[in-house]
Amino acid sequence: MIKIAVLGYGTVGSGVVEVIEKNHDSINKKAADDIEIKYVLDLRDFPGDPVEKVLVHDYNVILNDPEVSIVVETMGGLHPAYEFTKQALEAGKSVCTSNKELVAEYGTELVRIAEKKDINYLFEASCGGGIPIIRPLNSSLTADEIDEIEGILNGTTNYILTKMAVDGLDFDEALKEAQQNGYAERNPEADIEGYDACRKIAILSSLAYGAHIDYRDIYTEGITKITATDIKYAQSLGASIKLLATSKKVHDGFYAMVSPVMINAHNPLYSVQGVFNAIFIHGNVLGDAMFYGSGAGKLPTASAVVADVVDCAKHLHKHIIMNWSSRPLKLMDIENVRNRFFVRMEGCMAQEIVRVNGVFGDVESFSVPGISGEFAFITEKMPEHEFRDGIAQLKGIRSTIRVGF
Amino acid sequence: MIKIAVLGYGTVGSGVVEVIEKNHDSINKKAADDIEIKYVLDLRDFPGDPVEKVLVHDYNVILNDPEVSIVVETMGGLHPAYEFTKQALEAGKSVCTSNKELVAEYGTELVRIAEKKDINYLFEASCGGGIPIIRPLNSSLTADEIDEIEGILNGTTNYILTKMAVDGLDFDEALKEAQQNGYAERNPEADIEGYDACRKIAILSSLAYGAHIDYRDIYTEGITKITATDIKYAQSLGASIKLLATSKKVHDGFYAMVSPVMINAHNPLYSVQGVFNAIFIHGNVLGDAMFYGSGAGKLPTASAVVADVVDCAKHLHKHIIMNWSSRPLKLMDIENVRNRFFVRMEGCMAQEIVRVNGVFGDVESFSVPGISGEFAFITEKMPEHEFRDGIAQLKGIRSTIRVGF
Repeated sequence: MIKIAVLGYGTVGSGVVEVIEKNHDSINKKAADDIEIKYVLDLRDFPGDPVEKVLVHDYNVILNDPEVSIVVETMGGLHPAYEFTKQALEAGKSVCTSNKELVAEYGTELVRIAEKKDINYLFEASCGGGIPIIRPLNSSLTADEIDEIEGILNGTTNYILTKMAVDGLDFDEALKEAQQNGYAERNPEADIEGYDACRKIAILSSLAYGAHIDYRDIYTEGITKITATDIKYAQSLGASIKLLATSKKVHDGFYAMVSPVMINAHNPLYSVQGVFNAIFIHGNVLGDAMFYGSGAGKLPTASAVVADVVDCAKHLHKHIIMNWSSRPLKLMDIENVRNRFFVRMEGCMAQEIVRVNGVFGDVESFSVPGISGEFAFITEKMPEHEFRDGIAQLKGIRSTIRVGF
Repeated sequence: MIKIAVLGYGTVGSGVVEVIEKNHDSINKKAADDIEIKYVLDLRDFPGDPVEKVLVHDYNVILNDPEVSIVVETMGGLHPAYEFTKQALEAGKSVCTSNKELVAEYGTELVRIAEKKDINYLFEASCGGGIPIIRPLNSSLTADEIDEIEGILNGTTNYILTKMAVDGLDFDEALKEAQQNGYAERNPEADIEGYDACRKIAILSSLAYGAHIDYRDIYTEGITKITATDIKYAQSLGASIKLLATSKKVHDGFYAMVSPVMINAHNPLYSVQGVFNAIFIHGNVLGDAMFYGSGAGKLPTASAVVADVVDCAKHLHKHIIMNWSSRPLKLMDIENVRNRFFVRMEGCMAQEIVRVNGVFGDVESFSVPGISGEFAFITEKMPEHEFRDGIAQLKGIRSTIRVGF
């Protein structure tokens, strides 16, 4: 019998309790032991909910109970999740979490404590919701040197962008609809500004490259400036606009960024719709691989957390080796990263294109039927700083979006 | 230092040697030990090849060397691969393989020996080439009860079907091109008749459902009857024809089958092109997930084999629990499985449709511009035996294909 405690009875925490009850028999078979929830910690009471029987308000009850060998941290936020996790690990209890903020901020320290104690700090649910990606990176792609990760890592923004594309909604309308359907929070900043995707690509890249990437070093741009008109231009090219979180090895190092990118059907991420997430990975022997699934939601996220619980149960007193290092990975200056850029510009294409070509050389320019008074062009690949300098010489720029083809 | 031996220096075996040399440093780091190839077994000589230094012709040299703790079986075929594997496991050496034939035929017995000896028999490369799928099934999707697997598991047939769709080739022409490009063997039977996909879905389903599926029980139909005309009809519906290997839980049990199926863009497998493979999985809490990548080829397959070597190195004297049981899973009679069917029929649609409706009720019927003297219809969902009985009452049937939408 393995006794566990769940910290936080919110969406994910209650999902964990539900999944462990629902698939009780098969989970115990796979863990080769019985898993029992001894405590659920929450500040609130839940009168009438069966959780009442195991509900506690004081973390010390859990910490000081030697019977508890696995702690599930589904509180979210940095504090007190950090303190609770550290105390649990130091007390010899393995911890499983869905908390990407905490992993991105304190992962290095917490993994090191787990290693020292010969227990585990697992965080499959921190990236890509229910999609198995952390464990495959850690234990399946071990023959490869990974040189690129490109992901749709945030379900809220992908839902909004899909709604804008399919129903022709503007950003604000699509956001409101996402909030009404429970796909966006009341304060949606972490999602729509790309902060959530930024933490996730920091975690995935740290694991993939075996060196620590500080999420603060990652250039991050959200989707708030994307308009229905931008999407019409993309569609006229057979493309879609996705919030991509990318890290890539280029000849002089690694870069990482989160930003909206136009991609076409040649990119396997092109057809990822709604709240689904997908992660494309390139390895130097494997070639291309992609992992696709529900990136968020109560049960898919709980599925990943519980899979971690099973893995902890199978490795109760054995640290699972992780390719996570405290050695910092210095990212190259984003200004030197090379991209193609889509640009919308006021005025008549026939008149303005001479000025544009004077700045950017021969560009591909086009207009879309029904959108008047402006046109668009796509540059060749160039460093970000050159593009910025070029754009500063032109007037009437309405929007600029990176292009992935 | 962990010493390994590679049995068979063919495509995959030489790939394994190449990958271990190429990514030496990162592999050793992830294995937390140095991995050295002490022997390569092959009947042939390879004059001038660096492998000469470690080449042996007698398996007993490997079997009797206590320094060898991991054996890589990349010989293929059932014999002597079975005997060599069994002897290695009984001598306390873990075995990694890409040999799906052997796993489908003797997996239950070999896994049991590994379990008894507290070592491992791993076969990530047996299904989906480089795509991590066996390990995710075994250690990531543990919170779920999986109720459906649907995969494009054979790169050769997917290459042929893609060529037929894109270039309008007939089956024989596309097969010849696949052979010229090294994507099909001179004797292509195992691929084009679906036998290869059949063994792979047997392995994946056995792991996913925790009970043994005998590949001989799986209804298997290849792609040899698919014509360029069939594909034109599919395209007129916005659909493609794929060789799908499927197993699914339905109310009264599980069924499994390999057959060509028309699917449309709502199916994430629709856009899987050329030699790529993809595996769609549905779990009762995870929902939908898909794994995509190179399904064959020297280096991708070697990547999966070497990942198994790393996992064996990390678990040298510890059996990794597998959800693989000797308890047989009885599949339901394929005659009772319900499907929709596409049918091409000779004659004039306006005249014949009355007869068709008399047999199948109101069907969706259509013709394709440029194809004369025939038309097509799609039935409602019905049991296979009802469809067969119905079809027997009609004359001039040119082809029938299952429909997945």
